[in-house]
This record gives sequence, structure tokens and C-alpha cells, in this order.
Amino acid sequence: VAVVGVGLIGGSIGLALRARSMAGRVVGIGRNPASLEEALRLGVVDEATTNLDRGVAAAEVVVVCAPVTEIASAVMRAARQGNPGTLVTDAGSTKRTIVEAVENDPAARAVFVAAHPIAGSERKGPASATADLFEGRVCVLTPTPNTPRDRLARARAFWQALGCLIVELDPIAHDEALALTSHLPHAISAALAATVPGDVLGLAAGAFRDGTRVAASDPELWTSIFRENRAPVLAALDRFGVQLSEFRRALEAGDSAALREWWAAAQARRLSFESQSARPPVSD
Amino acid sequence: VAVVGVGLIGGSIGLALRARSMAGRVVGIGRNPASLEEALRLGVVDEATTNLDRGVAAAEVVVVCAPVTEIASAVMRAARQGNPGTLVTDAGSTKRTIVEAVENDPAARAVFVAAHPIAGSERKGPASATADLFEGRVCVLTPTPNTPRDRLARARAFWQALGCLIVELDPIAHDEALALTSHLPHAISAALAATVPGDVLGLAAGAFRDGTRVAASDPELWTSIFRENRAPVLAALDRFGVQLSEFRRALEAGDSAALREWWAAAQARRLSFESQSARPPVSD
Repeated sequence: VAVVGVGLIGGSIGLALRARSMAGRVVGIGRNPASLEEALRLGVVDEATTNLDRGVAAAEVVVVCAPVTEIASAVMRAARQGNPGTLVTDAGSTKRTIVEAVENDPAARAVFVAAHPIAGSERKGPASATADLFEGRVCVLTPTPNTPRDRLARARAFWQALGCLIVELDPIAHDEALALTSHLPHAISAALAATVPGDVLGLAAGAFRDGTRVAASDPELWTSIFRENRAPVLAALDRFGVQLSEFRRALEAGDSAALREWWAAAQARRLSFESQSARPPVSD
Repeated sequence: VAVVGVGLIGGSIGLALRARSMAGRVVGIGRNPASLEEALRLGVVDEATTNLDRGVAAAEVVVVCAPVTEIASAVMRAARQGNPGTLVTDAGSTKRTIVEAVENDPAARAVFVAAHPIAGSERKGPASATADLFEGRVCVLTPTPNTPRDRLARARAFWQALGCLIVELDPIAHDEALALTSHLPHAISAALAATVPGDVLGLAAGAFRDGTRVAASDPELWTSIFRENRAPVLAALDRFGVQLSEFRRALEAGDSAALREWWAAAQARRLSFESQSARPPVSD
């Protein structure tokens, strides 16, 4: 198995593959020699190379764990350089633009199944990788009518073997859902962190701490995700704005009944989420 | 020591007082006989009564842990019914309106020191109380020139003995700071929970989970806090709106540099918070 990108996600795939003896060899591919060396040293991969063409040549499976703006081109390149039996999949947080680009390339389309394992954290780099990152987590596959059925079956088996629960969605439905469940919460988290001035941070407590955790995430990574999923994120912001306006109106009017009702609806949604995720926990 | 309100905060004060042998007897005062009975059964208090006048009569210290809208009247009543040497303090999340009301009553003003131990969680009731809730947490005291110095010294000693780090602030400065560090994060959390439709909650992960944790809090409690601290919360919402608009503008323009810069500023604020709270953890 070749893993393109050996950060938190790619590194965790490497560790999981090795822990589960799922691959004869795990080849890590990356641009940054220091990261590759660290990945080797940490036992995240068996081999490492900065040369994608060479890295994918003998792979049965290629998993592209690059920033979303770089995934489509890596997939196309891996499809051309890999052997014809290869399965190419990815771990990108957005799907529509990647799938569209790949499907315009017949060679790439013939080997690719788009995937999004919903797991991760605000940390980055191979040192944050863990073998159980995908255990019990949802992995969304976004096949289209053009996706080869045999590769889809293999992708399903591959992500399942890493511990994932498979969900299939249309790429657009995926992007719209994730704009709400992940991209919006990340934007809100960063906006909240930036709002609270440094001189009162000493008084901040749990609500701020948990609400801004993911604001520590990599700016580059999130810039790419927001750009790739612009329209759904803007739509999610609109929905959020409606909620915030309702709250502001009730507060301006000093309307206790409206405030109570508004909060109770939010509380109900949260409690519904908690009861759903009393099933396997999903992290991100 | 008499504790008015035996929920999460009052109950934790009872447990801490008993664990640290700080009081000969802890008397729990409340309206709800079932809660009082539960508090007794859990060993949170030594005695319980629904009669505030009787409960405070022999107390050296009275701690009012009622909803913020009910604190001032409970303080005034405790001041009239308690013995003249009593210290009355509170644990309310807002301070200006409480201090103003109490200071209009000479008897209450003579015994009262306003306090806000910054600790808590989204849970409620005596069953969620813990003896170490205040350990290492900041407790803000908001004395004014009218606050009797001897009572201030006793309040400082009392909250310190519960494990708190004491900070003194003007009531208005407290309310403005907490609007940003706590009340805004709570409002944002609820708005975020309400924004994400039930049918995609299964795809929500860590950012949503942590970002909406406090949306599970009691609607009544938060309605009171928002109403009591209306203007500072509206000002905090404005500041948040500025951040959100900046993000939206950068996203609409597809301006990667602006998105990156925006995120990096938020990330820096979060990392600054993390380095500050590598000191004793503060929960809420």
C-alpha cells in the first residue's frame, strides 16, 4: 500500500495497516524529507520516498492523504504510474471537486473511489498518528455511476478493514452535509477564538476551551477545505446566521420565553446527537 | 455554612466543605423537596430545609447558588434573617445587577461580597456535584467601595479554602469579560447545535461534539444569565459578527491569503489560551 502524505491521517493509515498486517509493505510518499524520515523513525511506514511515480509503481492500493486542493492531481498521477490493477482512494474532507476532476480523466476514473474517513484532530504530522484513529469511525464513500464496481467493493473492504463504518453518499450530498457537520463548526470555532481578547483569556473556561479546540488546526489545511467547498459552507453560514439572529432578537427584546424556547430547541438537538453517538464515537 | 440552592454548584460547595472539614454543619436550602432529599442522601449537606429564614439563622457563612435572577432577593433575605456577623456571598455568573440591587439595601450591603467561581458544566442537580469542582479554578470577587473590608477578607479566605484562585474585578468589568469568555461561547454553542439538521448528525464529529457540549445546559439557567447580562452579551455578539463577516468576505472572494491570515490569527489566540491554561485548568 502506498500512502501519499504521511501526516496525521496518512500516518494513522500506515500504523493501522501495519498493526493489522493488512499490507506486505507500506510505502510513504511525501514532499518533505523531514516528515518522511520522522514517519520512518516512528514506524508509521516501511519505506519512504519523495518520488510519487516510484512510490506507487508496485502498490495494490494507493491512498492519497494530501490537502484537498492537491488530491485530484495526485490521483491522476498515481493512476498513470501505478499498475492497472491498482485501487486509488483518498481521505479528503471535500469530495465534489475532486470527483469531478478525476472523472474527466478516463485512466484515473477507472481506478478511483473517493473516500472521507471522518476522523482526525487539530494536531498534524506523523507524530500525532495513531493506529486506532479509524476504529468505529464513519468513512463516507462517494461513488458515482462512473465508479467501477470492483474498485468500489475493494475500497469498501479496505476502509472497513481499517475499522471504519461505511456510508455511501453522492459527492454533492457529502459536501453539503460536511459543510454543516464539520466545516461550519471549524469556522465558528476560529471566529470564537479570534473574538475573545487576549487580556481576558485567563477568565475563559470550559465553553471557550471546548468551543475553540479545533481553531488550533492548520491554517493551510482549512483554507483548502473552505475554498474547495465554498458554496455549501456559505449556505451553512447562512443557516447559522438565522439562528444567531433569532437569539439576538430575543435578547434585544428581553423576551425570556423566546430565549428559553430557542435554547431548548438547541438543547434538544444536542441531546439527540449525544444519544446517537452513544453508538460508536466519531472524532474529527 | 448555609447553601441556598443545592444543584451542581451549591452541591459541590457542600461536598467540598464537608471533605475539607471547613464547616461544623452544612445546611442546604432549596425550594424543591426532592432535590433537597437527594442532596441529603448523597451526603452533599448535613441538613436540608425549604425555609430560608430558618436555614440561615445560625449560619456564619451563607452562599447563594440560585439562578442569577433570584440571587439579590435571597441575599437581602439572608441578611435580614441571619445573625449580624454573617458573611453572605454568592456564585452567580453575572455580577452588576446583583451588586446594584444588594447595595441599595443597607442591611444586605453590610454583609455581602459578590463572587463568581468559574467552574461548572452542562450538567445540573446535586447528583453532578463533586468535592473538587473548585480546585485550582478562578473565583472572581467583585467588591466595590461599599463592600465591607472584613467581609471581603473572609470571602477571600472562604473561596480560597474551597480551592479557588482569587481574582478581584469591578462588577461591570466582570460582566463584560464573562460575556466574551463564557456567555458568548454558550450562545454560539447553542446556535451551532440548532443549525445542524437532525438527518446529518450521524456525520458530525469532534468539532461539532466539542463545539456544542454546553448546548446541553439548562435553558432556564441560561435564559437568566443572558437577560441579566444583556448589553455585554450583545456587544460580544457584535464582535463575533465582525469575525464571521471577515471570514465570509474572504470566502466569497475566494481569497486564500485572507482566509489563511484569518485562520492564523484565530489559531494564535487559541494557542495563547492553551499556553496560559497549561497552568491550573479552568472548567465551566
